[in-house]
Amino acid sequence: MNELIQKGKQAKEAALTLAQAKTKTKNKALSDLATSLIANTDLILAANEKDLAQASENGVRDAMLDRLRLNKQRVADIAEGVRQVAALADPIGEVIHMWKNEAELTIGKQRVPLGVIGIIYESRPNVTVDAAVLCFKTGNATILRGGSEAFHSNLALVSVIRDSLTSSGFPADAVQIVENTSRETAQELMRLNRYLDVLIPRGSARLIQAVLETATVPVIETGTGNCHVYIDKDAQLEMATKIIVNAKASRPSVCNAAETLLIHEGVAADFLPSIIAKLRAEKVEVRGDKTVATIVSDVIPAVELDWETEYADYILAIKVVTSVDAAISHINHYGTKHSEAIVTDNYFTSQKFLQQVDAAAVYVNASTRFTDGFEFGFGAEIGISTQKLHARGPMGLNELTSTKYIIYGEGQIRE
Amino acid sequence: MNELIQKGKQAKEAALTLAQAKTKTKNKALSDLATSLIANTDLILAANEKDLAQASENGVRDAMLDRLRLNKQRVADIAEGVRQVAALADPIGEVIHMWKNEAELTIGKQRVPLGVIGIIYESRPNVTVDAAVLCFKTGNATILRGGSEAFHSNLALVSVIRDSLTSSGFPADAVQIVENTSRETAQELMRLNRYLDVLIPRGSARLIQAVLETATVPVIETGTGNCHVYIDKDAQLEMATKIIVNAKASRPSVCNAAETLLIHEGVAADFLPSIIAKLRAEKVEVRGDKTVATIVSDVIPAVELDWETEYADYILAIKVVTSVDAAISHINHYGTKHSEAIVTDNYFTSQKFLQQVDAAAVYVNASTRFTDGFEFGFGAEIGISTQKLHARGPMGLNELTSTKYIIYGEGQIRE
Repeated sequence: MNELIQKGKQAKEAALTLAQAKTKTKNKALSDLATSLIANTDLILAANEKDLAQASENGVRDAMLDRLRLNKQRVADIAEGVRQVAALADPIGEVIHMWKNEAELTIGKQRVPLGVIGIIYESRPNVTVDAAVLCFKTGNATILRGGSEAFHSNLALVSVIRDSLTSSGFPADAVQIVENTSRETAQELMRLNRYLDVLIPRGSARLIQAVLETATVPVIETGTGNCHVYIDKDAQLEMATKIIVNAKASRPSVCNAAETLLIHEGVAADFLPSIIAKLRAEKVEVRGDKTVATIVSDVIPAVELDWETEYADYILAIKVVTSVDAAISHINHYGTKHSEAIVTDNYFTSQKFLQQVDAAAVYVNASTRFTDGFEFGFGAEIGISTQKLHARGPMGLNELTSTKYIIYGEGQIRE
Repeated sequence: MNELIQKGKQAKEAALTLAQAKTKTKNKALSDLATSLIANTDLILAANEKDLAQASENGVRDAMLDRLRLNKQRVADIAEGVRQVAALADPIGEVIHMWKNEAELTIGKQRVPLGVIGIIYESRPNVTVDAAVLCFKTGNATILRGGSEAFHSNLALVSVIRDSLTSSGFPADAVQIVENTSRETAQELMRLNRYLDVLIPRGSARLIQAVLETATVPVIETGTGNCHVYIDKDAQLEMATKIIVNAKASRPSVCNAAETLLIHEGVAADFLPSIIAKLRAEKVEVRGDKTVATIVSDVIPAVELDWETEYADYILAIKVVTSVDAAISHINHYGTKHSEAIVTDNYFTSQKFLQQVDAAAVYVNASTRFTDGFEFGFGAEIGISTQKLHARGPMGLNELTSTKYIIYGEGQIRE
């Protein structure tokens, strides 16, 4: 039998058991897994060495090698992450809402697992454990498909997970990994509707795009963020500076970092010189439109492409706008509906921005960098959804659940 | 420009306006539309006559012709439906949950429109108005793609809707219909990711399957229901009979009708003769497994295919099971996860069934026929979702919304 069909069947079977598992039993299995990961550090690092050697041979660049690399501390961090997930509240079983209908039926909407979740991801092997345990905690079976660069590391991690689950009395098939890392098998996974309830891609924009184009399984799109900070005419300079520097330069590679600064023409001349100086001190390259250039003469000219680009780097585009409405228009046109911020002292301007900007997270007087499951207080994050269906913004454990209606009757029939 | 790209752009533009519309203004537009539909009855019926004539010529069978047919009363009913939607509470703007995080940001999760919703549906022209007004009420723009059989009716209805919206100060492009009814255009709509936020197919299993296979736009799968009633050994005969007759025979063509009766072996001999007699009195053809045949000799033998089939007709398959566990296994194996019911007096058996059956709606001592947006008290229904992502079970206005996080800060930056 084909690998994916086999694994799909096994996952569906395991999902039925997982859905009925008690919270305490699941938490105990997670804490045992944390211990087991530490105990198997040598085995995991040996497998990781193979991947690193292969990657070096293939001329993979240093930044990528670093993402791929595990060491004792990183394995300990992964294990600590598993313990943290064990400590989180279990959303499964919660009845979100319960009411009586006209027929006197008592109808409850209860959180249940999604079922079988597919995860397609790239090089970082910590995602293997992270995704598997978040799905496990919420009673879902997982089929993982990691990148070929991390093949040996992922296989070792999954083997530790499966052994540990078995020892804890769970079916090993609660967590499976696709061993065939060909592109064809990945595409087949994206169309495995009979066995997969949801597919979550985690990785580059290119990977997510490929999944969106190929998948027939319901997908939760994560990722790309072309985020903006708008400095209003009623903003405080000091607050505006702090926020844009944080949003751009604290970690430019992540999706909640700002890519474009919009600034009201009324304060552009006053604010831009000092803001740009501050950004440059943080090694940020500044690109500006014509108005910016009339204020700070040595900025690189910004072109149309700059407004569309998620640099994920120490680069910021700046545009001067005539009003908050122009800022909102620009954001709704060029943004990827991820995270958007306004800096203003004006109540009505802040309300307009909150209401009219179409994005997963809209901030008044705060950095876009807060869009994150941990920062939001979810205690976990499986990704940040940029689609509108099912989940939008940071996804924690609740977002890995579905619901079912449980209905208590006394013999009612429909007239 | 290609029709769909043009319409997609226009819909996106209209959606921005709709998202900001006030509840009162939307309700007034809906009530004006109801008046306008009545005032344009002759125009609508004339267009419908063209479709009926064409369908007759094509040898369409009577049941289909009836679904296609409009008359004065049906137009009045459609208008009344629009008035009812106007009277419903507007979910947009509701803040479902609001909290402070560790950084002292106040984070609110607010209901917002999905954006642009595509609806692909078949012959019944009332769906045109129904879908358009539910989407409009929730601030979404709609791109409709109806069946070619109802082409003239749909065009007339949409033209009345657009004129009425314009008179009410809304963009006409809030509701658009695809005029090219070719299969290629339908497929193109299913892949219009740049402009569509969601696609909802309403119609036959064949249509829904085609959408699932082709769509790259996020889809909400609606429809198919292979539903079961399980009569436990601790059931009351009279209640069990009433429920199975209602579940099967009150309206066999709908998706929440029962297709298979499972009965515990402990009561099969006592219950089956009278239940089968009652079902036959309601013109239901009964097919049974071998054990059923030993009790009631003249039943048609049920084969494997019977357990998988959604008859949508006056046919019921009956299987004798040895336990509630066997009933649950059968349901989780053959069911389509729509609506499932148990009849029992036993508390623990009822709890097990509620917990272990994987379906959108699980009933204790009530008919599966209650799975419906109106019966659940939602005041509307856009369909019944059988997928686990976003919405599961009957979908009312809330299910046509997404959320966004609105975040109130005081200058916070992320450490």
